[in-house]
Amino acid sequence: MSTDTPKTPKNEEARERLIDLAAEFYDQFAQGEVPAMRIPTRTKSNIEYDEEQGVWVYGDRHSTRSANSVGGAQKLLKAVYVIDFLSNQLQEGRSSTLRELYYLSESWDFDAAQFSDQDESNQLVEDLEIVSDVTREDFNMRPEESGATLMGPLFLREQTRRGEREIHCQEDVGEGGYQIPNNPDTIEFLDHDADFVLCVETGGMRDRLVENGFDTDYNVIIVHLKGQPARATRRITKRLRDELDLPVVVFTDGDPWSYRIYGSVAYGSIKSAHLSERLATPEAQFVGIQPSDIVRYELPTDPLSDSDVNALQSELEDPRFQSEYWTEQIELQLDIGKKAEQQALASRGLDFVTDTYLPERLSEMDVV
Amino acid sequence: MSTDTPKTPKNEEARERLIDLAAEFYDQFAQGEVPAMRIPTRTKSNIEYDEEQGVWVYGDRHSTRSANSVGGAQKLLKAVYVIDFLSNQLQEGRSSTLRELYYLSESWDFDAAQFSDQDESNQLVEDLEIVSDVTREDFNMRPEESGATLMGPLFLREQTRRGEREIHCQEDVGEGGYQIPNNPDTIEFLDHDADFVLCVETGGMRDRLVENGFDTDYNVIIVHLKGQPARATRRITKRLRDELDLPVVVFTDGDPWSYRIYGSVAYGSIKSAHLSERLATPEAQFVGIQPSDIVRYELPTDPLSDSDVNALQSELEDPRFQSEYWTEQIELQLDIGKKAEQQALASRGLDFVTDTYLPERLSEMDVV
Repeated sequence: MSTDTPKTPKNEEARERLIDLAAEFYDQFAQGEVPAMRIPTRTKSNIEYDEEQGVWVYGDRHSTRSANSVGGAQKLLKAVYVIDFLSNQLQEGRSSTLRELYYLSESWDFDAAQFSDQDESNQLVEDLEIVSDVTREDFNMRPEESGATLMGPLFLREQTRRGEREIHCQEDVGEGGYQIPNNPDTIEFLDHDADFVLCVETGGMRDRLVENGFDTDYNVIIVHLKGQPARATRRITKRLRDELDLPVVVFTDGDPWSYRIYGSVAYGSIKSAHLSERLATPEAQFVGIQPSDIVRYELPTDPLSDSDVNALQSELEDPRFQSEYWTEQIELQLDIGKKAEQQALASRGLDFVTDTYLPERLSEMDVV
Repeated sequence: MSTDTPKTPKNEEARERLIDLAAEFYDQFAQGEVPAMRIPTRTKSNIEYDEEQGVWVYGDRHSTRSANSVGGAQKLLKAVYVIDFLSNQLQEGRSSTLRELYYLSESWDFDAAQFSDQDESNQLVEDLEIVSDVTREDFNMRPEESGATLMGPLFLREQTRRGEREIHCQEDVGEGGYQIPNNPDTIEFLDHDADFVLCVETGGMRDRLVENGFDTDYNVIIVHLKGQPARATRRITKRLRDELDLPVVVFTDGDPWSYRIYGSVAYGSIKSAHLSERLATPEAQFVGIQPSDIVRYELPTDPLSDSDVNALQSELEDPRFQSEYWTEQIELQLDIGKKAEQQALASRGLDFVTDTYLPERLSEMDVV
C-alpha cells in the first residue's frame, strides 16, 4: 500500500523556498561571487526579548557561511545535499527523522558531503529553517519522539497518510486521550465546547484531572506537557489560543525547572528562538504550584538543592521573569527554601486539586 | 460530573483479598500471636529462571515482617493503613498514583503510619501485590506515566470512566496511534486482521514503519515500546499473544541495553518477577538489530563503550541469554566492538527497513 502524505500548500511553499536558496548559490557562482549563506548568530548573547510580542527572538548579529575556506565550502556543500534530499522528500510526500537524515548522508555519493555526527546535521536543518523561514515540520522532518496527549471538548479533523480522521477528544478516545501528531498543522479544529486550555506538566496530575472529570466539569482542554514540552505540544497550544481564542493556563510543579517549562510555553526557548512566533503563547498564565501556594496550603515539601537555588537566582536575572509577580514568588521561594510537586496537593485528599485548589486559583486569575 | 470507574469483578476480588490480609493480622492478635507477614525475599539472589514457563520468578527464600520489633510493628501498621486506603479506593471506584499515596499518608491521623519517603510506599504496594497475588493495576494504582501507543488492524473496546469506547487502531486514530491506557485489562479485543505483533523500541522507527504502511502491508500490530517498556505495554503485548494467538517479535537497537529491553518483554524483569506470568511473553522472538546484521548489511556503527562491553559480558552470564543464538551474537559483538541503531538502516535508504530488512528477517524467522 502506498501511504503518501497528501502534499499541502505549505509543503509546496517549503519546497520552493529551498530551491530558491539553492538558486541563490547558483546565481552567486554565475556572477563570479564566492557563494555564501548569512544566518543570525545562534548564541545566548544574540537572543533578544521582543517586548511587543512577549517572545524571545534572535538579535541583529549575523554570521556568514562562505565557500572561501575549505570548511565553509563543505558546509555549503552539505547544505546543498540536504536541500536536494528535502526537496525530493517533499516532492514524494515522504517524511523522515533527523536521525535518519544523518544516517542517510552515508549513502551520498560524495564523501565530503557526509555528516561527521548528528549534531552537525541537526544544526544544518535548524539553519535551513532560519534562512528559508520554513519550519522543520513543513520540511516533513519528524522529531524522534512526539508523545503528548490532549483530552477535552474538542472536535477535530486530522489529515493522516491514510486519509482524514474526525476525532472528538473525549468521545472518540480511550482513557489515554488523543495523541498529538508530530506535525499538528495537519489538524483542523472543527468544533469545541471549551472555556479554556489547561497545560499540565506531569502524567500523574493529568490522569488525576481526567479521573476527576475536570475537563467535563469545567469545559477545559487538558494538554499534557510531559515535562519540557515538545514542539508539537507547544504548537497545538498556541493554535488553540489563537484560533479558538481560548485562555491558556499552565500547571506545573513548584520548582525552578518547572517555571522554565512555563517559560517555554509562554515565551519560547533560546534553542528555538527563530520559531517563537509560531510556538510561544505569550498570553499563557501560570496557575502554580506557586511558592505562595506552598505556604498558603501548607503543602508537603522538599528542601531546595544547591542547583535549585542557582536556577532560581538565574531566573531572577532572566528577562522572561522580570515581572513583579515572578520576582515576588522567586524571592519567597528562596526565603522559605522549599519546593513542592503538583501531586503534593494529594496530602489534602485526592479531590482537593479539582474541588478547591484549581477553582480558587482560576477564579483569582479570572479564568473561571 | 461524577466519573466513577465501573467496579469490575477483579476490583471486588482485589478488595476481598486485601481485607483477608487485614483479617489475618486480626486473627493473629485474637489468638495471642505476634502479627506477621511473610513475603518472598526480593533480591537478585532469590530470582529463579522458571525453565518451564521461560520467565523469571522469585525463589523459595522468604523474609518475615513481624510486630516483635518497633520497626516491624510500624511496617505492619503502615500496611494496614494502605490496605484501608486501597479498600476504600476500590469501594468508591477511584484510582490514584503511587506518588499520591505517598503524599496522602501525610493526612493520616496517626503519625507513625506516615511514609518517610516514596521508596517506602512503593515497596509496600509491591509487597501487597505479592502477598495478595493481586496486581497494582487491580488495586487501581496508576503509574506516573503510561505513554506507549499501538497501531494496526485491531478493533477493541475500552472500558473508560466515561463509558465504553470502540476503537479501530488504524481507522479511528490519528497518525499518533492508539494510546494504551494505564490498565490495559480495561480493553476487550473485538476483532482483528493481524498476522503478528511487532514491538519497536524507538519512536523514530515506529513512525517510519507507520509512514511506510508496514502495518497495512503485512497485517501487523505495531506496539511502540518507548525504550524500556512500561507495565501496561508489556501486559497488552502478552494479551495479544495469548488471546489472539499472534506471534510477537521485538525490534530494537543493536546494543546490550536494547537486548535487555527484549529480555523484559520476553522473560520478565527482576524488579517485577512476581508479575512475570502476567507481563512476560516468553514466545517473543528477537528480530534485531543483531550483531550479525551489522556485518551483513554493513550498517553505520558506533564503537562499544566500556559500559557496553561490561553489559555484554554480564549478559553472557545471564541465564536469560544462555542460548546458543545469544552466545553467538554477543560474542560476535564483543569481537567486532561495534553497535548500531535501528535507524542506521536508513543509510541504505528510507524504505530499506520495510522493503528488505524486515521481510528478510521475518521470513528467516518463519513469521511471514
